[in-house]
Amino acid sequence: MYFVKVYVTYKDSVLDPQGEAVKGAVHRLGYDEIEDVRIGKYFEIKVAKSDRPVEEMIEEVCDKLLANVNMETYRYEIMTSEEV
Amino acid sequence: MYFVKVYVTYKDSVLDPQGEAVKGAVHRLGYDEIEDVRIGKYFEIKVAKSDRPVEEMIEEVCDKLLANVNMETYRYEIMTSEEV
Repeated sequence: MYFVKVYVTYKDSVLDPQGEAVKGAVHRLGYDEIEDVRIGKYFEIKVAKSDRPVEEMIEEVCDKLLANVNMETYRYEIMTSEEV
Repeated sequence: MYFVKVYVTYKDSVLDPQGEAVKGAVHRLGYDEIEDVRIGKYFEIKVAKSDRPVEEMIEEVCDKLLANVNMETYRYEIMTSEEV
């Protein structure tokens, strides 16, 4: 069993309107020391062991489903069940 | 300058309908080895140095704005600009 964490974020060149909205909200609450907020998606995925490499499978799933590769970028961490 | 990563996830006891939908979609694409998907939010926050402790400020912002503490839980990592 593998335990995979995937982080999907907008590319730096892409405006993040949700992050801008949260930044405005924290400033209205008085947290002026917060200079920037960017928001992404976070996936925790449990994968059974199989014949194909888990890295290859996760990259396929990210490219096809989890991330919009035109606007977003992703990174992932793979842990085995012993490491969790 | 601090660089803070915040991860907000549903509590384990709370059903994650978005994760269930993604799990169904990956199964339809043929990735049967994926056993479970849970989805959370991921925030990258830049914080200027100030007099109050950054941990205290981040926990306040999470409790008030970033997480619904009834249904969600959060964890965070704080890096200084030297560590990034």
